[in-house]
Amino acid sequence: MTTETKYQRKETPKIAIKELGELLGERCSLDEEDLKKHGRDKSHLDAYNPDCVVYPKTTEEVVSVVKICDKYDVIMIPYGVGTSLEGHTTPIHGGIHIDMSLMNKILHCSLEDMDVTVQSGTLKNQLNSYLSKKGVFFAVDPGSNATIGGMCSTGASGTMTVKYGTIRDNVVNLTIVLADGRILKTANRAKKSSSGYDLTHLILGSEGTLGIITEATVKIYRLPKAISSGICCFPTVKDCTEAVTKIVQTSLGSLARCEYLNTAAITGVNKYFKSTFTEKPTLLLEFHGETTKQVEQVKEKLVQIVEGHGSFGLSFTTDKEKRDKMWKIRHNVYYALINSRENCKLFASDVCVPISNLPKIILETEKEFKERGVFCPIIGHVADGNFHVNAPITDEETELVEELNENLIERAVKYEGTCSGEHGIGFGKINSSLREHGELFFEIEKKIKLAFDPKNLLNPGKVYKNL
Amino acid sequence: MTTETKYQRKETPKIAIKELGELLGERCSLDEEDLKKHGRDKSHLDAYNPDCVVYPKTTEEVVSVVKICDKYDVIMIPYGVGTSLEGHTTPIHGGIHIDMSLMNKILHCSLEDMDVTVQSGTLKNQLNSYLSKKGVFFAVDPGSNATIGGMCSTGASGTMTVKYGTIRDNVVNLTIVLADGRILKTANRAKKSSSGYDLTHLILGSEGTLGIITEATVKIYRLPKAISSGICCFPTVKDCTEAVTKIVQTSLGSLARCEYLNTAAITGVNKYFKSTFTEKPTLLLEFHGETTKQVEQVKEKLVQIVEGHGSFGLSFTTDKEKRDKMWKIRHNVYYALINSRENCKLFASDVCVPISNLPKIILETEKEFKERGVFCPIIGHVADGNFHVNAPITDEETELVEELNENLIERAVKYEGTCSGEHGIGFGKINSSLREHGELFFEIEKKIKLAFDPKNLLNPGKVYKNL
Repeated sequence: MTTETKYQRKETPKIAIKELGELLGERCSLDEEDLKKHGRDKSHLDAYNPDCVVYPKTTEEVVSVVKICDKYDVIMIPYGVGTSLEGHTTPIHGGIHIDMSLMNKILHCSLEDMDVTVQSGTLKNQLNSYLSKKGVFFAVDPGSNATIGGMCSTGASGTMTVKYGTIRDNVVNLTIVLADGRILKTANRAKKSSSGYDLTHLILGSEGTLGIITEATVKIYRLPKAISSGICCFPTVKDCTEAVTKIVQTSLGSLARCEYLNTAAITGVNKYFKSTFTEKPTLLLEFHGETTKQVEQVKEKLVQIVEGHGSFGLSFTTDKEKRDKMWKIRHNVYYALINSRENCKLFASDVCVPISNLPKIILETEKEFKERGVFCPIIGHVADGNFHVNAPITDEETELVEELNENLIERAVKYEGTCSGEHGIGFGKINSSLREHGELFFEIEKKIKLAFDPKNLLNPGKVYKNL
Repeated sequence: MTTETKYQRKETPKIAIKELGELLGERCSLDEEDLKKHGRDKSHLDAYNPDCVVYPKTTEEVVSVVKICDKYDVIMIPYGVGTSLEGHTTPIHGGIHIDMSLMNKILHCSLEDMDVTVQSGTLKNQLNSYLSKKGVFFAVDPGSNATIGGMCSTGASGTMTVKYGTIRDNVVNLTIVLADGRILKTANRAKKSSSGYDLTHLILGSEGTLGIITEATVKIYRLPKAISSGICCFPTVKDCTEAVTKIVQTSLGSLARCEYLNTAAITGVNKYFKSTFTEKPTLLLEFHGETTKQVEQVKEKLVQIVEGHGSFGLSFTTDKEKRDKMWKIRHNVYYALINSRENCKLFASDVCVPISNLPKIILETEKEFKERGVFCPIIGHVADGNFHVNAPITDEETELVEELNENLIERAVKYEGTCSGEHGIGFGKINSSLREHGELFFEIEKKIKLAFDPKNLLNPGKVYKNL
């Protein structure tokens, strides 16, 4: 089947593109290279180019763009920086991209209230670079240097969720442009509110299907005064995942990161970075505290736990350079794995289960991949029960790995978990979401979608079956 | 104006009550005393009795009740224990109460995953009594001994939000019965998920207008190994609120409670409890930690801060009996104040602002109440920016105090805050919510409501203007 026949494509009228050009001049792009760049995210999924890409600079310009699209029934897809992993931004039904990259202004930062308001195209690293000079940071830390708006749209999380929560725990309010061009602010700047429906959380994770996020106020934290990062290995997967379960149960308040890499992932890392990590199930850990003593105390407790599960090679450091190096490697596992094989693409799974079920689901998954002859690097935010099989695969292997992923998701649902811990649904995981939630959940999603976007112009074909 | 003419009342057909009686026998009550008891919550607002009260025991029985109501277009209002403060459960448009008090079973507790699943009629104190034997606790702590379902419905929080978050931060999933009797589970038991719209948070705070919560899975925490509670006074309101701002900015991770009582509130407490607290602006504080040393360290930091703002009378204790006594007093300020005056009812405001705006809004409010001659006891979860004017008032003063509250809310909105930090909207604060959010927000709320409940049978007349 060619990609062209898979999805019905809605035509974007020329008059609409003409009017967008009149509105934005050079910031309305029809350049082939540009369209191609926007047609695919970082997933293994098929590419579909947009008909045009616009680059607004303000919420008001987004309003003008949306009004033109609304007038001519043009499909609109907000676009951050294209790091999504389930085809969230791919225009499978055609339409235009509203690229937020020029909307990257930091609008207001309050150290008194510990929040910062940004335009949604602001990049995570850009924001943290700005904040670090003030002694604070934004704590949601996905692998990619995503935009804040993109992170809001997909319900992102990452390595520091165990201490600081997901993006859902870190957004104070959102400004969105609705499908008809009206501007809605979901909340004010108070730390909590019980005034009306929680529209902030409804928009978070809705993948651009309910409105276009143009601004966000997010929580910030003081940079910890003491940080200690470390690594340790385990003889077996079972030892490692059982140690993690125990670590989480002990509620170590200072634990800020607890990342798992299985043997295959470490092998990929060593190959790409020419590093010499022991090729065994491994944990990367980090503690944040007010004082070195506090961090040391917690570390001692942790060492007791991991040694009780046979860990070896324990090594901790407070040296910033060494810590940064370690986490840079962790954040670049994606590149390590995609470069570990010729002509491959990366298949990323994303299940999340209650922590008590983590050991068995990881073991069963590694076993099945091995039996079916597929290389199975696993990295995971295991303190949250979330892990990814990041398999570098060829086109020929796609079908097999999709089958294995289906089995993995079936397992996750059986173990009271979810098909997506942090990547979202896009168009890649709609059937998985249906399996997880059932038809009634989709029916409710559809009704909510129609309440916000009756003409189904905002990123159609994503999250649930809606075309 | 009599209360009868204020709201249009929808008749409950006799056949519907007959069928409910056949379904539930004695658990379908038409007893006048029972109806009267259900007609009013703990607010100063007018009472309206339900036409009937049913007491289901299971989700399936709720389904059967809802199907009868759906068949005969009967208004349904879920009822916990009636501790709401904005008339949330009051049947202003008639209908029946679905009283959840017999649905108080604790269904599943996992110390591995640190969560517990309960029927929604389970009381907060009942749950904590059960959990404490296992060394864990549920951390959302409103003043009243509310039901878990009620807390979910109103978006409750309370004294421990500064460390453990609001109910919105503590719910893993909900089981709800929709308006047509179908059962929806909003999520699974994973710690995080990006699979589809966040229906859990949409239901939280929706005050029974979108569905009837029958079960909830909530997070639990280990009982802290070290707890220290304390009290201190300040010469002026300004000193006190500025100290709070500083405390919050210092991000003391162990700070679990930071409660403000102004001079008037302390006076009321002393009168009711025959206690001898210094009648000055006061903070009640609590620290939770892993070790006594850790708590002591944080306490020392705090002492530096408050002494820098002129505090006096500092007194801390780790003794459980003394701590419990102090917090019992705090939780009973409501009763102290309502008993401080003959024939009065309690008017409770509930604004919440960014912490940087807290000092000025408290000062301005105290000043205005004083100028208008109204007794102004204030208690507040000030580390969240949330405070309540809890004024014991006579019927004659209602109009004046409502005017003062309108001014307070106007001030809160001006200071980027909300009209309700934790009590919710009910029918008492609909105009305030409109002032805060504007018409478009209400329009979206209405569309969502109709998506869930097209016949408007679930607690109509609450949250937003919907009749």
